[in-house]
Amino acid sequence: MKTTKIVSTLLLVSSFVCADALVEKVKKSGIKAIPQSQHELLTIIDDKKDPITSEKVELGKKLYFDPRLSRSNLISCNTCHNLALGGADGISAAIGHKWTANPHHLNSPTVYNSVFFDAQFWDGRSAHLADQAQGPVQAGPEMASPKELVEQRVNSIPAYVEEFKKAYGDKVDVNFERITSTIAIFEKTLVTPSRFDQFLNGNANALTKAEKKGLNTFIDKGCASCHNGIALGGTLQPFEIAAKYKFSEVGDFKGNANGMVKTPTLRNITETGPYFHNGAIWSLTEAVKEMGSVQLGINISDKEAGEIVTFLNSLTGEKPTITYPILPASTDKTPKPSFD
Amino acid sequence: MKTTKIVSTLLLVSSFVCADALVEKVKKSGIKAIPQSQHELLTIIDDKKDPITSEKVELGKKLYFDPRLSRSNLISCNTCHNLALGGADGISAAIGHKWTANPHHLNSPTVYNSVFFDAQFWDGRSAHLADQAQGPVQAGPEMASPKELVEQRVNSIPAYVEEFKKAYGDKVDVNFERITSTIAIFEKTLVTPSRFDQFLNGNANALTKAEKKGLNTFIDKGCASCHNGIALGGTLQPFEIAAKYKFSEVGDFKGNANGMVKTPTLRNITETGPYFHNGAIWSLTEAVKEMGSVQLGINISDKEAGEIVTFLNSLTGEKPTITYPILPASTDKTPKPSFD
Repeated sequence: MKTTKIVSTLLLVSSFVCADALVEKVKKSGIKAIPQSQHELLTIIDDKKDPITSEKVELGKKLYFDPRLSRSNLISCNTCHNLALGGADGISAAIGHKWTANPHHLNSPTVYNSVFFDAQFWDGRSAHLADQAQGPVQAGPEMASPKELVEQRVNSIPAYVEEFKKAYGDKVDVNFERITSTIAIFEKTLVTPSRFDQFLNGNANALTKAEKKGLNTFIDKGCASCHNGIALGGTLQPFEIAAKYKFSEVGDFKGNANGMVKTPTLRNITETGPYFHNGAIWSLTEAVKEMGSVQLGINISDKEAGEIVTFLNSLTGEKPTITYPILPASTDKTPKPSFD
Repeated sequence: MKTTKIVSTLLLVSSFVCADALVEKVKKSGIKAIPQSQHELLTIIDDKKDPITSEKVELGKKLYFDPRLSRSNLISCNTCHNLALGGADGISAAIGHKWTANPHHLNSPTVYNSVFFDAQFWDGRSAHLADQAQGPVQAGPEMASPKELVEQRVNSIPAYVEEFKKAYGDKVDVNFERITSTIAIFEKTLVTPSRFDQFLNGNANALTKAEKKGLNTFIDKGCASCHNGIALGGTLQPFEIAAKYKFSEVGDFKGNANGMVKTPTLRNITETGPYFHNGAIWSLTEAVKEMGSVQLGINISDKEAGEIVTFLNSLTGEKPTITYPILPASTDKTPKPSFD
C-alpha cells in the first residue's frame, strides 16, 4: 500500500517534470498558446483604428450569415466557412455561384483562429481579414457580387443601415469596404482555445499521456518548423521542399510568385478535412505522412503518424456560442437575386 | 383640462369596445391565436407516440443545419428554409443540387409555424412534417441524397449515433425515417407568436390603430375565407376561383389532382417574399391585390391593399432563439460528397 503510494507520487512528480520539459520544448519550437486573458488577446487581435465592439460583432455576424450578400441570395460566408463544421465546408474544392468549383481546385480554409494568421488565402495575398473578406464576395465562382450590388442590397434594408449607424456613428458610409471590414471584426472573435492551451498554460493534466507523447513526436519530427505561432500555421512557407506532393496535379495552384504557400492552422484540424490546398487527402494520418515526405523529407511511420494525430485531437477547441441571427427583411428596393 | 380628460377616457373606452368587437369578428372568421400556454400549445403540436423532448429537439436542430445530409455536403434544410430569413430563401423558385431550379418553379415555403398546417407541400401531399422532411432530402434538384446515403453518413459519425441513443434509447435504429422525423420534431418548435396573438389574447393595445383598421379590411374583404386557423393558412383550397392568376404561366404547377393548393401562412409574410407558389410577385401589396382578383373576384384598391399590408406587419413574430450548432466531425467512414 505504502509502496504503491510512493510509486504513484513519483510517477506524478515525473509526469509533472516531463510536462514542464515538454512545455518548454513546445515554446522553443515557436508554438504559442491562445492568451488566456481577454486583455492580452485583444492586444493581438484588436485594431485601435477600428476597435472591436459588441455592435460591430453582432452586425458582422449578421452579414457573415446573410446569403443576400451573394448575387443569387443563396451563398453566405458561412456556406464555405461553416461555423458548424469547424469553420470550413468539408469538400475538396470550394463550390459557389452556378455550382462552379474553385478554378484552381482550392480547398476552403477554416475561419476559426484565422485572426492569428500572418496572411490570408492559400497564397497569402491578403494581409488581414478585412481585405480577405472582399475577395470571395466578389469572386465569380464564389458569391459573384459586384461591390455595387452588395452596397445596394445592404443600403436598401433600413434596419441594416441603422445598425451601421449604431456601430460607427450617424455619418457612416455603408460602402463595400465598411461592410466587409465589419464581417472581419466578427471573424476576429472566432477564437477556439483548447486543452492544448490549458497544457501550455500550466495544466499538466490537460493532455492525456498519449497526447503528450504525440506532441513530443510532432516536435521531434520537425512539424513545428512550419506549424508554429498561436495558430500552429498561418505563415507563408515554401512548399514541396523535399519531394513532390503526390496529388500535385490536382488543380494548378503553385503558391505565390515565389512558390510560397500559407501553412494551414492545425487548430480544429480533425474537423476540417479534406486536407492540403487542393483537399485531395481525406485521412489526417495520410496527410501527416505526406507532409513528412513533401516538407521534411522524412518517412513518418504509421505508428508515429498515429501518435501525432492523437496529439492533434487536443487542438480541437471550444467554439464561441453563436446565436443564429434573425436578419432584417428585404424591401421593395432591394435588388433581386440573379442566377446567371 | 377636465374636458380633455373626459374625452381621452371616452376615446380609450371606445377603443377598447372596438377592439373587443374586432377580436370577436376575427375569431368568427376562423382565425386563431397561437396558444399562450406551453401546455395548450403542446396539445396541438405534440404527438404522444413520439413526444417532443429537449434531446430530440437539439439533435433535430443539428440535422436541420447539417449540409452533410445532402449528396454534395453543401445543402441543408436551412439552405431553402433559412431560419435567419423568415424560414424561407428569398428567391422565386428553390435552387438545389447542381444549381437546379425546382422543375415546377415552386417557391420554398417558410418552415416557421408549419406545424400548424393541415398539409405540407404546395399540393398538400404530405400530412405532416415528418413525412414532408423526407421529400427535399431525396429530391434530385434539392439535396439529392438517397435514403441509404443519409443513413450511412449519420451512422458513420459516432457522436450522432450517441445522440440518437440518448434521445430514443439504446436500441434505436438510426434509419432515414428516424432521422427525418427527428428533424420534424425540431421544426415543430419553430413557432413565432406575434403582436397579433397578444391582441387576440386580450391586449387591445398590441396593435396600432392602423393595424386594427387593416385587420378589419382584411376580414371584410374575405381574405380569412382561406387564410384562417392558427397559421392564417396551411389548408388546401381551390385556386383561381374567380380569375386566372396573372403569372399562371410561370412554371407548370396546377395544384393537386383536384386543383387544390395549400394556402401559405401569413405569419411572417413580410419576411418571406417573393409570393405565390411560383414566387413571381415580389411586392406584398401587389400580392394582396392579385389575391383579391384571383380568389375573391374583387378589386382591392391600392389604399385597401396598403391597409391590409399594414395589418400583415403585425404577424411578424418573435423567433425562437437558436444557438447555431457545432456538428460532430465526419470520420474516415463517412461517405464522401459528390457533385454530379
